[in-house]
Amino acid sequence: MNESVGIVKTRSVDFDVELQLESGRVLGPLTLAYETYGTLNRSKSNAVLVAHAWTGDAHAAGRHGPDDRKPGWWDGMIGPGKVLDTDQYFVICSNVIGSCFGSTGPSSINPRTGKPYHLQFPVLMVRDMVRAQKLLIDHLGIEQLLTVIGGSMGAMQALEWAVHYPEHVRSIIPIAGTGRPSPMAIALNALARQAIYNDPMWRKGNYKPEHPPADGLALARAVGHISFLSDTSMQLKFGRRFSARDGQFDFFGQYEIERYLTYNGRNFVERFDTNSFLYLAKSLDLYDVSWGFDSLESALNNLACPSIWFAFSSDWLYAPYQTEEVVNVLRCLNKPVEYHLIESDYGHDSFLVEPEKFTPKVTSFLEKLSAES
Amino acid sequence: MNESVGIVKTRSVDFDVELQLESGRVLGPLTLAYETYGTLNRSKSNAVLVAHAWTGDAHAAGRHGPDDRKPGWWDGMIGPGKVLDTDQYFVICSNVIGSCFGSTGPSSINPRTGKPYHLQFPVLMVRDMVRAQKLLIDHLGIEQLLTVIGGSMGAMQALEWAVHYPEHVRSIIPIAGTGRPSPMAIALNALARQAIYNDPMWRKGNYKPEHPPADGLALARAVGHISFLSDTSMQLKFGRRFSARDGQFDFFGQYEIERYLTYNGRNFVERFDTNSFLYLAKSLDLYDVSWGFDSLESALNNLACPSIWFAFSSDWLYAPYQTEEVVNVLRCLNKPVEYHLIESDYGHDSFLVEPEKFTPKVTSFLEKLSAES
Repeated sequence: MNESVGIVKTRSVDFDVELQLESGRVLGPLTLAYETYGTLNRSKSNAVLVAHAWTGDAHAAGRHGPDDRKPGWWDGMIGPGKVLDTDQYFVICSNVIGSCFGSTGPSSINPRTGKPYHLQFPVLMVRDMVRAQKLLIDHLGIEQLLTVIGGSMGAMQALEWAVHYPEHVRSIIPIAGTGRPSPMAIALNALARQAIYNDPMWRKGNYKPEHPPADGLALARAVGHISFLSDTSMQLKFGRRFSARDGQFDFFGQYEIERYLTYNGRNFVERFDTNSFLYLAKSLDLYDVSWGFDSLESALNNLACPSIWFAFSSDWLYAPYQTEEVVNVLRCLNKPVEYHLIESDYGHDSFLVEPEKFTPKVTSFLEKLSAES
Repeated sequence: MNESVGIVKTRSVDFDVELQLESGRVLGPLTLAYETYGTLNRSKSNAVLVAHAWTGDAHAAGRHGPDDRKPGWWDGMIGPGKVLDTDQYFVICSNVIGSCFGSTGPSSINPRTGKPYHLQFPVLMVRDMVRAQKLLIDHLGIEQLLTVIGGSMGAMQALEWAVHYPEHVRSIIPIAGTGRPSPMAIALNALARQAIYNDPMWRKGNYKPEHPPADGLALARAVGHISFLSDTSMQLKFGRRFSARDGQFDFFGQYEIERYLTYNGRNFVERFDTNSFLYLAKSLDLYDVSWGFDSLESALNNLACPSIWFAFSSDWLYAPYQTEEVVNVLRCLNKPVEYHLIESDYGHDSFLVEPEKFTPKVTSFLEKLSAES
């Protein structure tokens, strides 16, 4: 289980298209950044698409160089002998459009003006991200994906694949997902947005990359962090410990949890673009699998493949009842569906923190699927 | 039940004292703003102290004038024939120190400098607020309060009264309280603080009253709002409705919940002082009934009076388990204690939104108490 895919490279492909978006606008030309691990088999039947979450990227496994400090974000899942076994599967991960890690996003050059899009970039739905991914899958010559797997926003992408490209997926594995975020989730994103809008450095999106609205983005990230954790995980990790460096009665004295949020917020500014953060937050809020359909039922009736769903007991961002809403409709529609509520204290982040709690079920799901081919 | 205490006036009393604070600092002289409703009986045995929450004030009932648009913040509870029956009880409510409605706080004049305290104001614990209230109760010639009742920060004050002045209270009624806030509650306050610190108008607390850090305070209030509501109450009130005035694909388009948070945040700036907001947030975070004691048990062992506790099922700020932690210790110590977990969808705010769900139990608790005198 400790084997790595080794040194990998993010590749990039340009599509000279005008992608028709849900908003009615078009986006193009498009660049997509992606990585692949393992080998596509002769029948092209072993391709697995890994879909990343809000602040993720195409670098899901391996290292970019021998001195690379950290491996890809889901390295524990992807590699020889791992759950997504690269001796067996051809694993693809691409950066979503709207993001800032090589795929077209608000900091890309708008071909119509020769300048960065900034707020001229169109508001995207998750469906649009998947539409762009379909271009990549076609480009790689893959007719049908063995599965699409992802957590959080990745789960949304998996579901969109199954609804809109039913002939092109043999299964989906949505983890810590939702059919549509709750008003609570929207409210938290609203705080994050406002934190950025309040920062004079944001300049309505026209900041220079070297002068980002650091205070605003760090605070926005702290909002996110809280929603990814849980009351219990904070109790376990921080409790009510006061920072050893501060006096309890100092006005600016901090509890450990506070210091952690500040520290991580600051680090985030180094690696993420503010406008991308805002655009993707918007895509999350707008996500609704039934968008454009008469009902949740009619959207989910499009599914032609088996799906396996995981929700986490302490996830209060996309709480289990939201996955269950989708799963129950799928069951009513007699779709082949498996659902597991995983007991975990780590909130929404459980899918990253405690993968061992659900991966055995992923393994057997994939084995059964492979046996059927 | 619809009778009002009528037109009332906030009074004010000055104490030429040096109040010794938990931090080791002193605060004085002190001004306390307060209101009273009903008449103190001859034996001075019918006094009820109402303790307000974070952003509350001394104006708990009645109106300040015939054209006053809104009555006091707990008018539904206080008046002739109401739960806190002013034909029967002498009800007192005072603004806590650290606040901005007439009692000494960070915007008061520091007698040592002749200028507003701003960040020279000492960090307070809830215990210090209660210490100041004791001065007022003494001033009113009351030896023993029939009860201290309050929600949220008011519940903390009630508990502090029972722990530190056991001979001066005959009962307490803490509602939606906690023995010590969780790291989640601290984390949310950390966001609120940072939102204010990020606002250049804050100027490290040295803003002019007419130029408050409005963006920061409005956002800080929005954080609070979210924590006072619940997932369910947001679903019921806002769902995923998009503002009718905005286009769904407008970058700045808002959901109803978002518009609500923005609107209420802005209104809050009109009525609350930013530094007071910060100081009281700090007092909430620091609250720990066992502060200065060896244990929770030894703190609660001080209680000499019956208490009745209410927690609300959907309260995720001071979740029911926190009240239960205190109640369980009181039970182990064989203290007379009554506990009710109230089913309500309105989160922490339930104590303000659905008082009818717990007030009958308050009424019978108080009747039993009065019968014993």
